[in-house]
Amino acid sequence: MTVTLDDIRAAAERLEGNALRTPLLESPLLNAQLGCRLLVKAECLQLTGSFKYRGAFNRISQLDPETWAKGVVAYSTGNHAQGVAAAAKHAGTEAVIVLPEDAPEVKKRNTRAWGAELVFYNRDTDDRAAIAEEVARKRGGAALVPPYDHEHVIAGQGTIGLEILEQTEAMGTRPDAVVIPVGGGGLTAGISTAVRALCPETRFFMAEPAAYDDTARSLAAGKRLGVDLSPGHPTTFCDALTAPMPGEITFSINRTTVNGVLVQSDDDVCRGIYTAFNDLKIVLEPSGAIGLAAVVSGALEKSCGAIKGRTIVVIASGGNVDAATFCDALKKGAPR
Amino acid sequence: MTVTLDDIRAAAERLEGNALRTPLLESPLLNAQLGCRLLVKAECLQLTGSFKYRGAFNRISQLDPETWAKGVVAYSTGNHAQGVAAAAKHAGTEAVIVLPEDAPEVKKRNTRAWGAELVFYNRDTDDRAAIAEEVARKRGGAALVPPYDHEHVIAGQGTIGLEILEQTEAMGTRPDAVVIPVGGGGLTAGISTAVRALCPETRFFMAEPAAYDDTARSLAAGKRLGVDLSPGHPTTFCDALTAPMPGEITFSINRTTVNGVLVQSDDDVCRGIYTAFNDLKIVLEPSGAIGLAAVVSGALEKSCGAIKGRTIVVIASGGNVDAATFCDALKKGAPR
Repeated sequence: MTVTLDDIRAAAERLEGNALRTPLLESPLLNAQLGCRLLVKAECLQLTGSFKYRGAFNRISQLDPETWAKGVVAYSTGNHAQGVAAAAKHAGTEAVIVLPEDAPEVKKRNTRAWGAELVFYNRDTDDRAAIAEEVARKRGGAALVPPYDHEHVIAGQGTIGLEILEQTEAMGTRPDAVVIPVGGGGLTAGISTAVRALCPETRFFMAEPAAYDDTARSLAAGKRLGVDLSPGHPTTFCDALTAPMPGEITFSINRTTVNGVLVQSDDDVCRGIYTAFNDLKIVLEPSGAIGLAAVVSGALEKSCGAIKGRTIVVIASGGNVDAATFCDALKKGAPR
Repeated sequence: MTVTLDDIRAAAERLEGNALRTPLLESPLLNAQLGCRLLVKAECLQLTGSFKYRGAFNRISQLDPETWAKGVVAYSTGNHAQGVAAAAKHAGTEAVIVLPEDAPEVKKRNTRAWGAELVFYNRDTDDRAAIAEEVARKRGGAALVPPYDHEHVIAGQGTIGLEILEQTEAMGTRPDAVVIPVGGGGLTAGISTAVRALCPETRFFMAEPAAYDDTARSLAAGKRLGVDLSPGHPTTFCDALTAPMPGEITFSINRTTVNGVLVQSDDDVCRGIYTAFNDLKIVLEPSGAIGLAAVVSGALEKSCGAIKGRTIVVIASGGNVDAATFCDALKKGAPR
């Protein structure tokens, strides 16, 4: 139960011509400010506005024809929903998406626009996995596309790692560190597996919202721990990073590949959103900006040691955000 | 006094490794909504946040060493300023930039950050060209880098046209129409020259703010006409498109290559900004969004005839915008 470089290379072949090769952006002015070479992998420009399409497509394209014909089912905070809906549509099969009733409107609207059927759940009281399994059973055994804890999904996300290495090589550099937003850990597991196999000196840091610091605490404890979801628990506007516990497969990978977790406040994230807007001209949702936040807030440097002169790659994982949330974050994140 | 395909190919060689090859973005959901294949050339992701760096670099890299050593001077509404400042810095020479005192703060700040010296003028009362010539004279004959009316500048912007043809070919299509924001006309002159030489069936449309419709009226009259700049004249928030009259060289090219001008209100432009935010996840300044506005507002279809099933390329020319202006535009441009 693990993911290899070969799995990720096979995923890259499946995705060729189906997913976009997103650009690795940089701003010379921002580099001068930070003292490092900061390269931003703009997965907000990926089909459906986030990296999630990669894993979903890699999973769905490996289903046997009989299962395929029954459609697919997924539960998601929103971006995985769109990824699965789009991948299912491209494959000519149906998708049913189980998603939280308070997900951003743009995510609901787009998931519907990709032709998926929506089933809603309550983030605090319902078990989304159980609901999804019930839907799959009713369809005579439709395949689940889990948001992170599946080898095919992890391998799909890992294709980002291969692209980063090709792109940094073309730029005449290698990544000294990669900073990755973490919810369930699929993105980190895929990228760190790919990059470590080909560039063993690279270090990996996950960026996590303070209100959902399950990954930081799990790594410290050496075992998977969940967040406390009792009434009044802390919340975050990083709606795509609210998985309550690391995945089983993802944790078993990430505990061996990751060097540290950078826990960020929502205010830090606002600075990340503003930097992406002002210096890179891309739209990032809160969850998509947390990696950038961890660099501009100084958290990476604190955890990693000096970053001066280093090449730092940040995964800007998604851009699906309502205008009101975005503008509120720009106000809070602008320099005083 | 004209620009050839060979000039543009030579410019592309000079720019290789110096300018970015910007992505050609698309949104399948937006395509489904519009009924055409809409490809957006994201020059907001170019070095300095706009296409202007291309023309500036192509001009500065052809100066003789003696002139070079005296530095360069430019006048600009802001994006050209940053382009010249960055190109001069890369070339190890100095830049003095003459720019309007009411230019967006982000443009002033970034121009300074690239190491340029700033000289301000009043948009309504001063002659910016005269001020720039005076500065150049004081420096013993520093070279001017005009914002649009120069063959080297036009050829630099034309490299976008070459990239579009390579990128559309890789996507298995050809541009039926290209929509280009117009101020002085340099971007249109370069792109239309390059694309027409290699793809003669492509049609070209310029998108222009209603308050500065000098290009539309000039093309209709068959001669260059200026806008009325007397007190109380109409204004636009498309600050990069307020050249008061088409350039001499640019007009002589564009009158033979362009099929129509799409005059857009500031409200139309807000819709363009919102669409770029929501569907493409890129940050566009008003002037950069006017081409996209001309498609989503229906103006292109009205002027061009049916766009259903066609491949439409839009130049998203820049992304240098203050957060307050951007958020105001998002509010106005969101669907009701």
